[in-house]
Amino acid sequence: MSLIVQKYGGTSVASIPCMMHVARKIKATQTAGHDVVVVVSAMGDETDRLESLAYQITDSPTEREMDVLLSTGEQVSIALLSMALQSLGCAAKSYTGFQVGIHTDSAHTKARIEHIDENNIRADLAQGYVVVVAGFQGMDANGNITTLGRGGSDTTAVALAAALKADECQIYTDVDGVYTADPRIVSQARCLPRVTFDEMLEVASQGAQVLQIRAVEFAGKYRVPLRVLSTFKEGAGTLVTFEEKGMEQPIVSGVTYCREEARLIIRSVPDKPGIAGRILGPISEANIEVDMIIKNLGDDGNTDFTFTVHRRDFDRARAILEKINLELNAGGILSDAKIAKLSIVGVGIRSHAGIASTMFEVLGKEGINIQLISTSEIKVSVVVDEKYLELGVRTIHEAFRLHEEPHEEDYEHRLRA
Amino acid sequence: MSLIVQKYGGTSVASIPCMMHVARKIKATQTAGHDVVVVVSAMGDETDRLESLAYQITDSPTEREMDVLLSTGEQVSIALLSMALQSLGCAAKSYTGFQVGIHTDSAHTKARIEHIDENNIRADLAQGYVVVVAGFQGMDANGNITTLGRGGSDTTAVALAAALKADECQIYTDVDGVYTADPRIVSQARCLPRVTFDEMLEVASQGAQVLQIRAVEFAGKYRVPLRVLSTFKEGAGTLVTFEEKGMEQPIVSGVTYCREEARLIIRSVPDKPGIAGRILGPISEANIEVDMIIKNLGDDGNTDFTFTVHRRDFDRARAILEKINLELNAGGILSDAKIAKLSIVGVGIRSHAGIASTMFEVLGKEGINIQLISTSEIKVSVVVDEKYLELGVRTIHEAFRLHEEPHEEDYEHRLRA
Repeated sequence: MSLIVQKYGGTSVASIPCMMHVARKIKATQTAGHDVVVVVSAMGDETDRLESLAYQITDSPTEREMDVLLSTGEQVSIALLSMALQSLGCAAKSYTGFQVGIHTDSAHTKARIEHIDENNIRADLAQGYVVVVAGFQGMDANGNITTLGRGGSDTTAVALAAALKADECQIYTDVDGVYTADPRIVSQARCLPRVTFDEMLEVASQGAQVLQIRAVEFAGKYRVPLRVLSTFKEGAGTLVTFEEKGMEQPIVSGVTYCREEARLIIRSVPDKPGIAGRILGPISEANIEVDMIIKNLGDDGNTDFTFTVHRRDFDRARAILEKINLELNAGGILSDAKIAKLSIVGVGIRSHAGIASTMFEVLGKEGINIQLISTSEIKVSVVVDEKYLELGVRTIHEAFRLHEEPHEEDYEHRLRA
Repeated sequence: MSLIVQKYGGTSVASIPCMMHVARKIKATQTAGHDVVVVVSAMGDETDRLESLAYQITDSPTEREMDVLLSTGEQVSIALLSMALQSLGCAAKSYTGFQVGIHTDSAHTKARIEHIDENNIRADLAQGYVVVVAGFQGMDANGNITTLGRGGSDTTAVALAAALKADECQIYTDVDGVYTADPRIVSQARCLPRVTFDEMLEVASQGAQVLQIRAVEFAGKYRVPLRVLSTFKEGAGTLVTFEEKGMEQPIVSGVTYCREEARLIIRSVPDKPGIAGRILGPISEANIEVDMIIKNLGDDGNTDFTFTVHRRDFDRARAILEKINLELNAGGILSDAKIAKLSIVGVGIRSHAGIASTMFEVLGKEGINIQLISTSEIKVSVVVDEKYLELGVRTIHEAFRLHEEPHEEDYEHRLRA
């Protein structure tokens, strides 16, 4: 008998028939002999509906009231899912964030969990209840309702799993695991049975909406075994592991992409200490997040400074940069919103220099120009023209033979690729 | 400077423009120098929408989860109304039933308020906030969410007014007060500037959906000055007073009616002790509420026994009565769902015998047969064929000259009528 925390996202409970399907899955888990705690999100587009009501009133709703408003979405879900479980003869009890005792700081709309009172839940589990907890929400020390930000239900699930020392935290979603590449682009893409936490973090940060990045960090920190799997398709999904990769594991786990970025270059700025802060300070003050940052050593004391931002922030970022260009008497702005970022992710990529050059080579052979390059310990990212996105993903997937189940000999072979 | 509790019902906040209108009214009250606590219901048909989701899952949702579900309706309203007030530059803060500390018993879906922690509200008022409280909801001693039953927001408002010793509890609704008769039937009907608590109770029990009857009882018990007025039309509305009527007040305050009843007669039952319980026991065990009960002294040891029930319970009540008819070997069932109840309401009606007979007389002159008569201290009710409803109401309204503002001389005149 083990304790399992299951999290079901908004698409998994978007309608009453979906809700009933989820209830049957939960019941099957309990019938198999497990204690089950369920975390559930708001139904389908409910959060968007509620937000749009607020924005009909004002462009700048206060965050405290926004949290009061949005937290109702999950509250509706826990009540209905509990009813659905009860209608299947399964004892169930709902808890709001308030009722569980999910204590957070007071940072409305993006609160952090501080601690969880798990005693009520343990008592209910001991009595045979399935406990259904509202995701995304908590309360601060003054009893105000807080929310954890979009996707916060993943974090609720992981935090509960950590507090309850659950045997596994299962994140049910509309994809059935982490793939070697987006199956919509690469038909031969393969679902990975396991990935490391670091790989998962890189995948999450790529905008592949499998798991919220904070939830992955949280799971890593508290060593919560995490599994991603599909609500609608049977299968074991992908387990996020703490283990080092064995020899039989390939270096490149998968290819990810991001279409949501835009590139900005400010030409010929003075190449001297403090220049990066001078340029990026006003950008971050405007609450614009910067992804890649590239600066080369300059000629004759000047350099080009390049960075990428989310496409929704592109216009605002460019306007700020135009001002900086004048102030610094720099060489002008180059910008492009039609770019795509392609990345290979895998533990140990950097220590195998051949991996990155293979990636650059195969892209070059297809006539795809690489505009920017950025690397991390376990990732190599390149920016290319957006029109090459699909071709680039397929080319890389093929080059590293990601569609094949890995064998030890393949590993060696791949190294030579 | 006085403290005013205002309650706005679902139709008053059915849309964002309505919500803004309500916010402007609240702001005007605060600007006039009052402390304001607002109780608000769920938007328009939201409660019905939520209920229908539950009934798509199961015919018998558990009451605990129903309360978790339905209480979200008011929570959405408090958040949006607070945002609306803030957008007008008015400091506002929302409270769920949970957050205020509206403590109830554990009777889910029909909980009773036990006490209210008003300290948070007082502190916020002292800081200049408009406090916006979710109607209809509370929590029990174990932290479970409870609701007070349909129309419970009126009760929340009155209970808060009592706890805060408010100077007035204003119930804003879509009618602009208590009328001498339904203005849709009697075009000359007049809005009463004041009625007594007892009269209000009789009016409320008539299905004239002005105020929830529990709220009126509560206000009477805790001596909360209560005012009914319109959200959409300016005017002072109707004040519900504790005062005895002065000489200048008419005896008959108004005419009410109810179309929702049905009449059942069981003929020739043995006229002996215990017979009423023998007949009505099974009816009340089936959770059917009985309104009028009429039994005359019988001839030769037998009597006819008559009562009225709500029309929705008519078929069930008749089926039960058929069984009783067989068991008692009685004289058969007579039933009629096409009846209407007309009542005159007013303090002191019973002590003025002429009032009732005037009512009977004027109805008779119009050829309206009176099927049943029932009287209370401040009410005389008659049951007539449903088709005479409008004619009956207008005839009575005219006979007692209810369209005229009362003067002392009128009072004497009316007595002679």
